[in-house]
Amino acid sequence: MANITKKVSWSSRPDESGAIGEGTPLLNGSEQQRHGRQTSEGGSLFQIGRLSTVDLEEEIVSDEDSVRGRPKEIPHNEKLLSLKFESLDYDNIENQLFLEEERRMSHMSFRCLEISRWVVCGLIGFLTGLIACFIDIVVEQLAGIKYQVVKENIEKFTEVGGLSISLLLWAALNSAIVMLGAIIVAFFEPIAAGSGIPQIKCYLNGVKIPRVVRLKTLVVKVCGVICSVVGGLAVGKEGPMIHSGAVVAAGVSQGRSTSLKRDFKIFEYFRRDTEKRDFVSAGAAAGVSAAFGAPVGGVLFSLEEGASFWNQMLTWRIFFASMISTFTLNFFLSIYHNNPGDLSNPGLINFGRFQTDSEAYYLYEIPLFIAMGAIGGLLGALFNILNYWLTIFRIRYVHRPCLQVMEAMLVAAVTATVSFTMIYFSNDCQPLSPDNTEEYPLQLFCADGEYNAMATAFFNTPERSVRSLFHNQPGSYNPLTLGLFTLTYFFLACWTYGLAVSAGVFIPSLLIGAAWGRLFGILLAAITTTGSIWAVPGKYALIGAAAQLGGIVRMTLSLTVIVVEATGNVTYGLPIMLVLMTAKIVGDYFVEGLYDIHIKLQSVPFLHWEAPATSHWLTAREVMSSPVTCLNRIEKVGTIVDTLSNTSTNHNGFPVVVQVSGIDEPARLCGLILRSQLIVLLKHKVFVELARSRLTHRKLQLKDFRDAYPRFPPIQSIHVSQDERECMMDLTEFMNPTPYTVPQETSLPRVFKLFRALGLRHLVVVDDENNVIGLVTRKDLARYHMGKHGLEELQLAQT
Amino acid sequence: MANITKKVSWSSRPDESGAIGEGTPLLNGSEQQRHGRQTSEGGSLFQIGRLSTVDLEEEIVSDEDSVRGRPKEIPHNEKLLSLKFESLDYDNIENQLFLEEERRMSHMSFRCLEISRWVVCGLIGFLTGLIACFIDIVVEQLAGIKYQVVKENIEKFTEVGGLSISLLLWAALNSAIVMLGAIIVAFFEPIAAGSGIPQIKCYLNGVKIPRVVRLKTLVVKVCGVICSVVGGLAVGKEGPMIHSGAVVAAGVSQGRSTSLKRDFKIFEYFRRDTEKRDFVSAGAAAGVSAAFGAPVGGVLFSLEEGASFWNQMLTWRIFFASMISTFTLNFFLSIYHNNPGDLSNPGLINFGRFQTDSEAYYLYEIPLFIAMGAIGGLLGALFNILNYWLTIFRIRYVHRPCLQVMEAMLVAAVTATVSFTMIYFSNDCQPLSPDNTEEYPLQLFCADGEYNAMATAFFNTPERSVRSLFHNQPGSYNPLTLGLFTLTYFFLACWTYGLAVSAGVFIPSLLIGAAWGRLFGILLAAITTTGSIWAVPGKYALIGAAAQLGGIVRMTLSLTVIVVEATGNVTYGLPIMLVLMTAKIVGDYFVEGLYDIHIKLQSVPFLHWEAPATSHWLTAREVMSSPVTCLNRIEKVGTIVDTLSNTSTNHNGFPVVVQVSGIDEPARLCGLILRSQLIVLLKHKVFVELARSRLTHRKLQLKDFRDAYPRFPPIQSIHVSQDERECMMDLTEFMNPTPYTVPQETSLPRVFKLFRALGLRHLVVVDDENNVIGLVTRKDLARYHMGKHGLEELQLAQT
Repeated sequence: MANITKKVSWSSRPDESGAIGEGTPLLNGSEQQRHGRQTSEGGSLFQIGRLSTVDLEEEIVSDEDSVRGRPKEIPHNEKLLSLKFESLDYDNIENQLFLEEERRMSHMSFRCLEISRWVVCGLIGFLTGLIACFIDIVVEQLAGIKYQVVKENIEKFTEVGGLSISLLLWAALNSAIVMLGAIIVAFFEPIAAGSGIPQIKCYLNGVKIPRVVRLKTLVVKVCGVICSVVGGLAVGKEGPMIHSGAVVAAGVSQGRSTSLKRDFKIFEYFRRDTEKRDFVSAGAAAGVSAAFGAPVGGVLFSLEEGASFWNQMLTWRIFFASMISTFTLNFFLSIYHNNPGDLSNPGLINFGRFQTDSEAYYLYEIPLFIAMGAIGGLLGALFNILNYWLTIFRIRYVHRPCLQVMEAMLVAAVTATVSFTMIYFSNDCQPLSPDNTEEYPLQLFCADGEYNAMATAFFNTPERSVRSLFHNQPGSYNPLTLGLFTLTYFFLACWTYGLAVSAGVFIPSLLIGAAWGRLFGILLAAITTTGSIWAVPGKYALIGAAAQLGGIVRMTLSLTVIVVEATGNVTYGLPIMLVLMTAKIVGDYFVEGLYDIHIKLQSVPFLHWEAPATSHWLTAREVMSSPVTCLNRIEKVGTIVDTLSNTSTNHNGFPVVVQVSGIDEPARLCGLILRSQLIVLLKHKVFVELARSRLTHRKLQLKDFRDAYPRFPPIQSIHVSQDERECMMDLTEFMNPTPYTVPQETSLPRVFKLFRALGLRHLVVVDDENNVIGLVTRKDLARYHMGKHGLEELQLAQT
Repeated sequence: MANITKKVSWSSRPDESGAIGEGTPLLNGSEQQRHGRQTSEGGSLFQIGRLSTVDLEEEIVSDEDSVRGRPKEIPHNEKLLSLKFESLDYDNIENQLFLEEERRMSHMSFRCLEISRWVVCGLIGFLTGLIACFIDIVVEQLAGIKYQVVKENIEKFTEVGGLSISLLLWAALNSAIVMLGAIIVAFFEPIAAGSGIPQIKCYLNGVKIPRVVRLKTLVVKVCGVICSVVGGLAVGKEGPMIHSGAVVAAGVSQGRSTSLKRDFKIFEYFRRDTEKRDFVSAGAAAGVSAAFGAPVGGVLFSLEEGASFWNQMLTWRIFFASMISTFTLNFFLSIYHNNPGDLSNPGLINFGRFQTDSEAYYLYEIPLFIAMGAIGGLLGALFNILNYWLTIFRIRYVHRPCLQVMEAMLVAAVTATVSFTMIYFSNDCQPLSPDNTEEYPLQLFCADGEYNAMATAFFNTPERSVRSLFHNQPGSYNPLTLGLFTLTYFFLACWTYGLAVSAGVFIPSLLIGAAWGRLFGILLAAITTTGSIWAVPGKYALIGAAAQLGGIVRMTLSLTVIVVEATGNVTYGLPIMLVLMTAKIVGDYFVEGLYDIHIKLQSVPFLHWEAPATSHWLTAREVMSSPVTCLNRIEKVGTIVDTLSNTSTNHNGFPVVVQVSGIDEPARLCGLILRSQLIVLLKHKVFVELARSRLTHRKLQLKDFRDAYPRFPPIQSIHVSQDERECMMDLTEFMNPTPYTVPQETSLPRVFKLFRALGLRHLVVVDDENNVIGLVTRKDLARYHMGKHGLEELQLAQT
C-alpha cells in the first residue's frame, strides 16, 4: 500500500473523481437515485448559502479507496453503470475568450496551426514506430537467450535423462520473467494490464479513463509486454501497441509531460479535449499500423472506434501518422536485420507472403470458408463466455495485487509445463528442412536430422508459430499435433487474458485459429481424393485464424482490412470478409465481443452508435437529471464554492441562468460553465470587487485555462476566505453562451443522435420558454440498452 | 424542343423548383437580396390573407425555361451560388405520426427492418455488378468488331496504298458511334453527361440534383458510356459506374420506379431522405468496387464524399454491397471468359499482377517517387486549368444540344486522326511476342513478325493500353513514342472531359500518367549505369499513373486504397500514398480538383467539412435569413395556400409558432413543418371542419406521406375552393415538435458543425425566450468560403 500516494494522474484527475466529481452516495437503482436526488435537494433548484460540509480527512480516505481499491472498482455484474467515470468534452467551449482569440488569428496562423498538426502526427507516427521497434528487438533478443538456454539444457538432459530438471528450469525462468511483468503492472499501474484496447475504445468514445494516457502507463506497458511475451505466456505484443500509440499521441500533442514536469511551451493550442482526442485517434491508428503493418486498417480502426464525425483532413492526417509509423518500424528493423532499405517488415506480426498463383481460391471453396467462419464464431463465443466467468471470479477473489502476481506466475508455470508435456509426449518428428527455416529446432527423441513438430508450435514466440502454420509445407504437421495444440492453447489463452500483465489477445487468437484451420485443411485434403491439389493447408490456416480472431474480438471492417494488409495480398479479401461476417453474426448470437464484455464489466458508460431501436417512447424529460444546480450570471463566490464542494451535485457543468420570475421558478438559460472553469476562476480570484480595486489586475486569458488542463486542482486545495466568500463573480466572459439545448419532448433517439454526433458532455433540456429544466449527460443516455427482452435500464452505482 | 414535356423528375421536383420552391427574383448579391426580402415582406413576419397571385401560365413558361435552359443553368463564374438547388433532409421528422409508428413497432420488426436493409444492400451490389459486367462485355464485343474492321482495312490499304481511306473509315466509324452517345445524352438526359462523380458528391453532400438518380438517367448513362468508349474517345468506363451504382441504389431501396409506374409495395419504410441517402452511399461504393475491384476503396470513397456521421453498421453494410458487387462482376466475367470459378477479374479495370519480388522498391527510390508526385500535381493542375477555361467556353458558346453533339463528333474524328497520324509516322517496330499478348497488333510498315508499338497505345481500349504500359517488358516502348503519346493524349483527354457524353476521367488520367511514368523510368535507367536493375519501367508507370490521377481528381485516402487494391499488392502502399499526398499538395497550390471545379461552376451550395477557419466573427444572426415566414399551430387554409404559392417565400420549411404577445412581435417556436407535408395535407384536405363533419374520415397516416415521396405535387395542382380557404388546419400532429435550434449569438463554425454533423435542412434561430427570429439553410452556410485573400462571400443567383 506504499504506492497510494503515487496514484496521481497525468492526464485526468482521479483524485477528485471519487471525492467531488462523482460524490453521490452509493445508489442501487436509478429510480431510487432520482428520488434521492430530489429529496436531498428539497425540490429547490438553487443551493445558495450552504456552508461547505466537506470533511477533508474523510474525502482523502474515500479517494484512496476509489483509486486503490480494485475490488470496488469493478461491480459484480454487468447490469450496472458506474458513476465513477467522467466524460471528455468534444464540444469547444466558445466563450468570449475563445472567440476573441479565434478572431485575432489571421489566415496565416490557421495555416501554421494546420502544419503543426501534421508535424505532431508525423512525430506520433515516428515515436510509435520506434517503440514498436524497441519492443520487437528486445523481445527477440531476450526470447532468443531464453530459448537457447532451455534448448541447451533439454539437449543435455535428453541424453543423460532427467528431463524434469529442464522442465523446472523452463517453468522457473518463465515464472520469474512474468513475475517481473506482473509486479510492475499490479503494483505500479494497474491500468496497463491487458491489451489496452478496451480502454482506448472508451477514451475515443468520450469516457475519461483515469491515468490511461499517462507516460508512466506507457513505460509500464512497454516493460510489461516484453516480460509477458518473453515469459512465454499465450499472449501477443500487438494489442498493447495501440495503447502505446495513444499515450504517445496524448503526450506529444500537449507539448509537455506532467509526469516529467516539463512544459515545452509548444502546441498550447491543442490543450483541450477536442484536439487531444483527434491526436489520440492518430496514435491508436499508428499503433495498429505498427503492430500489423496495416496503415489503412489502423485508420479504419480509429474511425470505427472513435470517430463520431468524419473529417477528411483529420482522416488524412491519421493515415499519415499510420504510414510514418509502419515505415519507421520497417526502416529500423531493416537496419537491425542488416539489410537496410529492404522494406519487408511493415509490422510486428508478419503473416509472410502468400503466393497468389499457387494459393488462389475457387468458388466452391466459399461455402467451406463460411462454415469455418461459423466455427470461429462458436469457438470465439465459447472463449468469451469462459473468459467472462473467469473475469467475474477474478473480480471477486483475485483482487489483491500480490494474488494477481501469484496468479500470473502460476499461469506462466502451467504454460511451460503443458508445453513441455505436449512436446515430450509428441512423437511427431519431421525432417529438418535444408534451408534451416526452423528457429529453435528441438530434436528431443527424434532421429538425427529431424525435429519435434510440436515444439515449433510451443517452443517459439507466438508470431513465429503463426507464420509456420501459414507457410510450412503441407505435411509439416500431423493432425493429432494440431488438434492437441488447439485444445491446450485455447484454454491457456483464455486463462491468460485478464491477468494483471500487459498483453494482447490478437496473436493467441490467430494461433488457435491457424491451428484448427490447418487441421481443417488437412482433413479436407484427406477426405477428397484429388484434395491435395486445392486444399492447401496454409490457406485454411489463414481463414481459420481470421475466423477465430473475428469470433473473439468481433471487429468488422477494420479487422478485414488489417488481416488483408497483414497478408499483403488482396486476393483473400472476399473470403476474409465473409468469414469475419459469419463469425460475428454467429458469435453475437451468444455473447458480445471480448472487449465489449470487459468494458461492460467495468460498468463504463459507453455510448453505442445509435440509441436502442425501441426507445422512441422515452423523451428527454424522462431521461434527464432534474433538478439541476444552476448558477446566476453574477454569482456569489460562497455559493460557487459550496456548489463545487457539495458531493450531491455530481455534474461537471452548470447551466448559467437569469432569474426572470420568482426564486423558486425555473430560470432562463443564458450559458453553461464547467466545473473546471470555475476552479480556475476561483484559483485566480476573478472576483468583481477585486477587479475594481486593483486596476492593474491581469485579465484572465485562455492560456490560464490551458495551463491548468487537464489536471485541474480539487476545490479543497483552493482557499477562499470568509471575506472573499461575500464577493461576486461575473461568469459572462467565461461561460459558453450558446450551449446546445433540446426541448423536453425530444425523443431519446433524437437526443442521443445530437449528443453522439457532436461529442457532447452536457446537453441542457429547456421548456418552451427556454427555462432550464434538466441536464442530460452521458450516463443518462448510456443507461438504456437493448437486452434480450427489449429495452433494459442499467442501474447506476458508485463503484 | 420536343422533349420539354418529358423533363419531369423521377426523384425530385424540378417542376416546382423553378416555379415555387426557389422563385425569388434574380438577385445579384446577398446584401441586395436580403434587402429585397425585407421590403417585399414589409417587415411583417406573417403574410396572412393575401390572395394567390400566381399566374399558372407564366409559371409553366418559367418552369420550362429553368429545366430546358442549359445556358441559364450555369452561371459564368464560380463566385455565385445558385438558389436553384434544394437540399435533402437527413434529419428525421419526428412528428406524432412517426413516433406513434416507431412506438408500435416491436423489437422483432426492427430486426426485420435491419435484415431488409442487408437484403437491399445485397441487391444493390448484385445489380451494380451486373451492370458493370454488361458494360464490359458489350464494350469488348463492339470495340473488337470495330478494331477488326479497321485493322483489316488498314492491312488492305497498307499493301495497295491509299491509307487515307482507312483514316476516313476509322474517323467516320468513331464519329458515328460517338454521335449516338452524344445525342441520347444531349437531347434526352443532360445530367448523364460526364462521369457523374460530381453529381453523386453533391447528392451525398445533401444537395438535391434534379433527375440524378432516375432510371432514365441510368439507361442513358450506360448506353452513353458504351458509345463513348467504343467510339474511341479518351475516356474510361469507370467513373460512370459510380453514378450507375447510386441510381440502382436509389431505385432498389424505394421498392418502386416512378418512371416505370410500378410500385412493388416493399421497403416503404425506406421512403425518406435519411434512409435513401444511406443506400445511395452503398450504391456509390458498389460502383467504385465494380469499377476498380476495390471494395475497401469503395467504402472509403462513400465515406469521404458522403458520410457526415459514421455508423458502424452502415459502414459494414456498405462494405457488404461493395463485396457483392465486385464478386458478381468477377463471377459473371469468369463465365464469360470460359473459366468459371476463376476469380481474377475483380474490376472493370485490371492493373494486372505486380510481382513483388522482382518489382520491390528501395528506400532511395522514395525521393524519386515524391518528385514524380510533384510532376503529377503540376500536370494535374495544368489539366484542370485548361479544362476550366474550356468549360467556361462551353458554357458560353456550346450550350445548344446540337452544337454539343457536333463538338463530340469533332473530338471523335480528331482523336481518330491524331491516333492514325501518330501511328503512321511512328517507326517504333517491336517484335511480336511469342505468346501473342497483343490484342490487335498492327503490322503497318513494320517487318513481318513485328508490330507497331505506337498502335498498342492508340489502337486499343484505354484499359488495355494502361495494362500494357504497366507490364510490358522493358524495351517494349521507345522514349519518343511515350513522349509523343503523353503529349497528345493529355490534350485529347482534357478536351474530351466535359463533352456531352457519358465518360470518366480516371482511365485517361491513369494512361497519361503511366506513359510519362514509364518514360521517367526509362530515362532513369538510361542515366544510371546499373540502372536497368532497379528502374523497372512498369513500376514507374504505376507511380506516374497514381501521380497524374491524384493531381487531377485530388482524392485522398480513398484513392490510395483504390490504387492499392487495383494493383492487388500492398507493397506499394507507402509510395502511392506519398505520391498522392505530394500531388495533392502541389496541385492544391494552383487550383482545385477537377470535380470541385465542376461543382463550383454549377454554383452548387456544397458544404465542406468545416466552416472557413476565419469565420468565428460571424454569428447566426448575421448568417440567417430573416424575417422568416411562420405559421400558426392552427392556421387558416387560405394563409397556407398563399404562403406556398408566394414566390418570395423560398424556404421549404416553416417554423410553427404560438403567438404570445402582439401580432407584430416575434412568436414562440413550437415546431417546424415542411412544404412537402403541407402539400400532402392540402391534397388530403385535412381540415379541422371536415374532420368534425365527417366522422368516418380516415386519419392521415405516415403512408400517405411516403406514397407522395419524393415527387410531391406542385401547389398549383391542388385545387382549394373559396369556402375551403376559410377552413382551419391543425398542424400539431404533423409538424416536427422538436426542431434543432441555435441562439442568435452562436458563431458560424458552431452553427456549421451542428448543421453538417446532423445533415440538417433547416435550423431555426431563436432569441433567449425561444422566439423565432430567423432560419439558417444550406445556402446561408455555403455562401462563405475561404478565398485567396481570406473569407469571401459568394453571391446568390437564381441561375
